[in-house]
Amino acid sequence: MSGELVLRPIARVESTLTSRADAPRQGDEGAPDAWVVFDESVRAALDDLAVGDEIILISWFDRADRDVVTVHPRGDQSRPPTGVFSTRSPDRPNPLGLHRVTVLATDGLRIQVNNLEALDGTPIVDVKPVLGDITDR
Amino acid sequence: MSGELVLRPIARVESTLTSRADAPRQGDEGAPDAWVVFDESVRAALDDLAVGDEIILISWFDRADRDVVTVHPRGDQSRPPTGVFSTRSPDRPNPLGLHRVTVLATDGLRIQVNNLEALDGTPIVDVKPVLGDITDR
Repeated sequence: MSGELVLRPIARVESTLTSRADAPRQGDEGAPDAWVVFDESVRAALDDLAVGDEIILISWFDRADRDVVTVHPRGDQSRPPTGVFSTRSPDRPNPLGLHRVTVLATDGLRIQVNNLEALDGTPIVDVKPVLGDITDR
Repeated sequence: MSGELVLRPIARVESTLTSRADAPRQGDEGAPDAWVVFDESVRAALDDLAVGDEIILISWFDRADRDVVTVHPRGDQSRPPTGVFSTRSPDRPNPLGLHRVTVLATDGLRIQVNNLEALDGTPIVDVKPVLGDITDR
């Protein structure tokens, strides 16, 4: 399949997590609060985010192995190798991460969020609201 | 912020939807069933997807305008311009789409899903399972 699609990092994570060995496997498994620091070029895109908003951050796992297509789920060797599209492994052909978090604070180009298992320095490529009921959209 | 991140399309959408004007705004607003046709290189990654699985497709909105940072939500001019990170607009700096769907059928490198509002030909860049309870992971 031909064609390359180019993402621009729009923000970076500032976190106390610095290695995969220390990071929880998912945000709701004990991940810390963290800051997300945006680029000036997306200031207006960010402007309506508010404390309490539930959002989805899309990250780029820059320390992932993109040649991996099967993994033992959760690194458990007793579980059979499983296609990565049935897992949340960061090692996958396009190493995108989905992080459902709540905005805890906003400060200009920075927002603080809870439950973020992405490592310090991880690029963020998009932010989306969690969708509510159809009538609230 | 420097650095470019390159995605490889791993699949394409085959759908009866061919124009943005005809597409529902979200999958649960009347989008049709559609097929997703994968590249041979990711066959093993796909191998454990099964009928009934709830998954998230990540698409690349290849007909989006990446220079847009604010929109009138849902195209409604009576609503004030809103930063795109607080909306699901396909027009955004990195035009990624999130589509929560259910697998209806599998056929080798093809899967059929419900409720997909992506247009025919849209590249798919990742597939992830919807996360269940912590104890089921």
